[in-house]
Amino acid sequence: MANPESVDILIIGAGPAGLALANWFRNSNIRVLLVDKKPGPTTRGQAEGLKSTTNEIFETFGIGAQITAESWRLEEIAIWGARKDGGAGIEREQVIQDKVEELGKIRETMLQQSRVEHHMLQNLLPHSNIQIQYDTVPASVKIDAALSNETDAYPVEVTLAGVASDEEDFYGNGTDAEERIRAKYIVGCDGARSWLRKQLNVTLEGDLTDSVFGVVDMVPKSNFPDIRKVCYLRADTGTILLVPRSNKEVRLYIPVESGSALPDPKDLTFARIMDAARRILSPYTLDAGSVAWWSAYRVGQRVGSHFSTHGERAFLVGDAVHTHSPKAGQGMNTSIQDAYNLGWKLRLILHKHIHSAGAAQTLLRTYESERRPVALDLIAFDRGYLKLFAAPSAQFDTEFLRAMKFTTGLSIRYPPSRAVHLHRGVTSPADLGPSLLKADLVPGKRLPEFQVVYQADGTTTRIHARLHATGAFRLLVFAGDIVGQTQLRDKLETLGARLAAPGPEGLGELTGTLSGGGPDTMRLETLLVHCAERDKIELLSLPDVFRPWSETEGYDYWRVFADADSAYEGHGHVYERLEIERETGCAVVVRPDGYVGAVLEVDDFEGVKGYFQGLGMFR
Amino acid sequence: MANPESVDILIIGAGPAGLALANWFRNSNIRVLLVDKKPGPTTRGQAEGLKSTTNEIFETFGIGAQITAESWRLEEIAIWGARKDGGAGIEREQVIQDKVEELGKIRETMLQQSRVEHHMLQNLLPHSNIQIQYDTVPASVKIDAALSNETDAYPVEVTLAGVASDEEDFYGNGTDAEERIRAKYIVGCDGARSWLRKQLNVTLEGDLTDSVFGVVDMVPKSNFPDIRKVCYLRADTGTILLVPRSNKEVRLYIPVESGSALPDPKDLTFARIMDAARRILSPYTLDAGSVAWWSAYRVGQRVGSHFSTHGERAFLVGDAVHTHSPKAGQGMNTSIQDAYNLGWKLRLILHKHIHSAGAAQTLLRTYESERRPVALDLIAFDRGYLKLFAAPSAQFDTEFLRAMKFTTGLSIRYPPSRAVHLHRGVTSPADLGPSLLKADLVPGKRLPEFQVVYQADGTTTRIHARLHATGAFRLLVFAGDIVGQTQLRDKLETLGARLAAPGPEGLGELTGTLSGGGPDTMRLETLLVHCAERDKIELLSLPDVFRPWSETEGYDYWRVFADADSAYEGHGHVYERLEIERETGCAVVVRPDGYVGAVLEVDDFEGVKGYFQGLGMFR
Repeated sequence: MANPESVDILIIGAGPAGLALANWFRNSNIRVLLVDKKPGPTTRGQAEGLKSTTNEIFETFGIGAQITAESWRLEEIAIWGARKDGGAGIEREQVIQDKVEELGKIRETMLQQSRVEHHMLQNLLPHSNIQIQYDTVPASVKIDAALSNETDAYPVEVTLAGVASDEEDFYGNGTDAEERIRAKYIVGCDGARSWLRKQLNVTLEGDLTDSVFGVVDMVPKSNFPDIRKVCYLRADTGTILLVPRSNKEVRLYIPVESGSALPDPKDLTFARIMDAARRILSPYTLDAGSVAWWSAYRVGQRVGSHFSTHGERAFLVGDAVHTHSPKAGQGMNTSIQDAYNLGWKLRLILHKHIHSAGAAQTLLRTYESERRPVALDLIAFDRGYLKLFAAPSAQFDTEFLRAMKFTTGLSIRYPPSRAVHLHRGVTSPADLGPSLLKADLVPGKRLPEFQVVYQADGTTTRIHARLHATGAFRLLVFAGDIVGQTQLRDKLETLGARLAAPGPEGLGELTGTLSGGGPDTMRLETLLVHCAERDKIELLSLPDVFRPWSETEGYDYWRVFADADSAYEGHGHVYERLEIERETGCAVVVRPDGYVGAVLEVDDFEGVKGYFQGLGMFR
Repeated sequence: MANPESVDILIIGAGPAGLALANWFRNSNIRVLLVDKKPGPTTRGQAEGLKSTTNEIFETFGIGAQITAESWRLEEIAIWGARKDGGAGIEREQVIQDKVEELGKIRETMLQQSRVEHHMLQNLLPHSNIQIQYDTVPASVKIDAALSNETDAYPVEVTLAGVASDEEDFYGNGTDAEERIRAKYIVGCDGARSWLRKQLNVTLEGDLTDSVFGVVDMVPKSNFPDIRKVCYLRADTGTILLVPRSNKEVRLYIPVESGSALPDPKDLTFARIMDAARRILSPYTLDAGSVAWWSAYRVGQRVGSHFSTHGERAFLVGDAVHTHSPKAGQGMNTSIQDAYNLGWKLRLILHKHIHSAGAAQTLLRTYESERRPVALDLIAFDRGYLKLFAAPSAQFDTEFLRAMKFTTGLSIRYPPSRAVHLHRGVTSPADLGPSLLKADLVPGKRLPEFQVVYQADGTTTRIHARLHATGAFRLLVFAGDIVGQTQLRDKLETLGARLAAPGPEGLGELTGTLSGGGPDTMRLETLLVHCAERDKIELLSLPDVFRPWSETEGYDYWRVFADADSAYEGHGHVYERLEIERETGCAVVVRPDGYVGAVLEVDDFEGVKGYFQGLGMFR
């Protein structure tokens, strides 16, 4: 393929981070080029745990169901320890459910990375604005930071080269000719040995840990009774983490050596790793029926000094800018979540929905201010988590539960910014309370997952599955009991009218004109979740903005939800779980990435408007 | 493609019935050829309701999750009738849940036929023993019934011709040369105008109904409030059935004319159908935003005189042998279920698991004895169902609920045969009671769906999703409370030992040798569902036959289930739903198609053995 001369975004690396980023630009006219040194899509790869928040992201990309169907579920954790009677060997201490109530869904599933990449890649293929070029490496990059204030400028210039090869391509040309390409933005999703990171002079800060681990994927032949559960096997000689996978396989993380004089992981043999495993598992047996993959590694815990450079024209995502142990299953998840944070901001700007270059740059700076603290927290967590493995702990249970909750992302709270407004009257995030491991409705936190019932047909949806990654913000109006409380119904009518009104008094410019406005013109999708008796409400009697009419498609029936019982999935108890008063309600600005931008009074139209004025989306 | 000179099974027609039949021969060495006059796979098609039993079949083929993910859910039914105050127009009478408690799952989903075919076809592609030839029609068939007693004979000889075409194929050959092919069996899945049916001199018995209907798939522009629910709109001028679909579309079945002097459906225009719809919907508006498809038809209600001929060497499946109205959504479902009934019997015989030609023929005769009554029942039901549409009825609610249950297949009970043993001491099916619309555990009925928890890892499965279409029978041992009841534990040990034992005293020949026996050698898979406290049971302490060891894969961890609470899907209450005593238990022979072959005492090893001796699988 001949390269385009210029693109909007050049992404280095078509792994999980690069593919997740690219998925933000489906159904747009933003020109994206991914380059990767690999000869083509990965066809095999290691198992990886998918956290519930990552599965939510796949749902917003429209590929959640396929990925979930292929994934292996993990629902029980067995803790084993040294025998209490002083004898040799280990014994079962307890079995606990691998469940975090706050999530309201499965905490983690397993699917190998190549399949995750496959689904994200397939999802891009229908979109000709997104191209992927394999067998390609960047050779040089120049970024003219002076141009970064000009919205339409191409400050990035990159030379691309074919991967050195003696082969000729289909047309008889050598494939290693260099090509020059200009881009508005460049994003390094090129992994732990990131080429772009080095070019940007971003340094990784941190250390290597003092242990060498082996990791083995195999079909086990063993009389160990809990081999199909997640197991923590804590013997005097170290702790094995065992994770079941599909294809009858399990993965084992095995501590082989620790201390100050460590062997080079390259020198470890499979036999030595298995010996270390057998010592810990004793008196149970362990043989490999077949070995799918094995490796040995030493963990580096490091975070980049910067996540973006050159006036927010260059970005680093995922492993390119932070590394840590794979044990908590955070690697691929954090990479995808980094990309998910960055993508909508670029989309909004490249679609010219932000009215000034300054506001655009301010928004892009939140990528670093939001994601770098997450990486630092993750490293701090990882240190404690590895210690939990290194030595038996009296507080193991408590620490373990904290760890389970941490890995869900429940503790992530982005700091206040133009994209995260604190409550009216609150000036410091500290005033919002700790809220660290709770699924609550707080600006800067992810909108908690919940289940609602469609007013129109009685089927259910989980909210994140409904919030497709279109680039639109959502105003989620929790209107309360609009049948029992006439004052709430009145407030809803007033709010609905102002949201739909054109001109500077309303927000019609963002919500789309009600007639003929398709998803392209809609920057703010208005959704309604009431808790009134569902059969007392007629959808078509609600304000227009919640069931807009289109001349080609009639009414939009999919914007109004009840917090109600359902035929098959029970009751979502949304108001209760999110602690919203049924007599008061509230209005929540949800960012395109599913994070809470603002929590407002249900009739605080000015608050809504102020949010979008702050972002530069509305004058 | 050059045709093979001979195949085991020749299937005429690669629609839903033919593809479902072919799916039975994955992972086998049975040579199957499908021919179809179409130039290739269907790329578009009408929406069709998928009944829960059909979705269960897809699960046993391993394609349930993909199909469910694409399907549209229907969960509410609105009944509208003429205004009670005597005014013009219709009013809402009630909204009911589209739910049949006995099923324990969604009664019906919608997915267009082309997508259903797509998934069944994709599922065949990895299996080179199954080939599909498009653009091909059979020109003649000869069946030598004298050979039908010789198991390995090829009594069927067919001439195949290319569909008349002026084009040449890739290699420059004309494509309409005739080819001769021999087959052991021929199956007509070639639809309502079946070519094979005519060749076999099978006649359709029955009539055309006295109504002409229009059917329209469109994006509606309407102020009718329940347009996203399934609706029965009963006006004085007739009843519309409205079914929501994906892509914002709905399907409408509209009565246009009835009586003795009917127009030819070909003469109906779209405008006339829409006029008829508007008359019924009045005072609500109806316009088409876009029309995906429309048609007009008159229903023929007919059943073939025979379902198999020529000593059970030729078979007719689906629409080829019964036709009825599409309104109850039974067409594609019944076709797939016919095929599902026939496929495993052919597989068993062609794999030489039946030891005599006579026993094989006896088994194949059950295709007609089991499926023809279903078709007759369906026609009888259809007549009543259409009447329900034709005129308002005082018993509408009761009749409607019966209809919902009927369409689930809950009333299907295959008659006693070598494959359906009545309980010991019971000589007539009448003695089993009516049980017609109930999900109970009765020989000849489908094993009711239920949810269990894997002993090994705490995850759940629905039983039919676990009973993959491998061709194996299952012995489902409901062992009861084997912790609380030591006598049950003793019975289980005895049964387990005999099931595993080699030679004429045991059933090891069918259950597979415990060491190294893979799925190919296993004709009877032994599964265990206990209702003891799950954490009081160690999987590896149960009899070997329920967790067999393989030298390559270690233990099989996926055969033992608890009737227990789960982390995310609640409790299946299997013993309660199926009315099995916890202190007694029972053993159930489940046929490869998920129907109950026999219900026995938990330690009735001779009953199990007798079942397989009767089928000719064990001497």
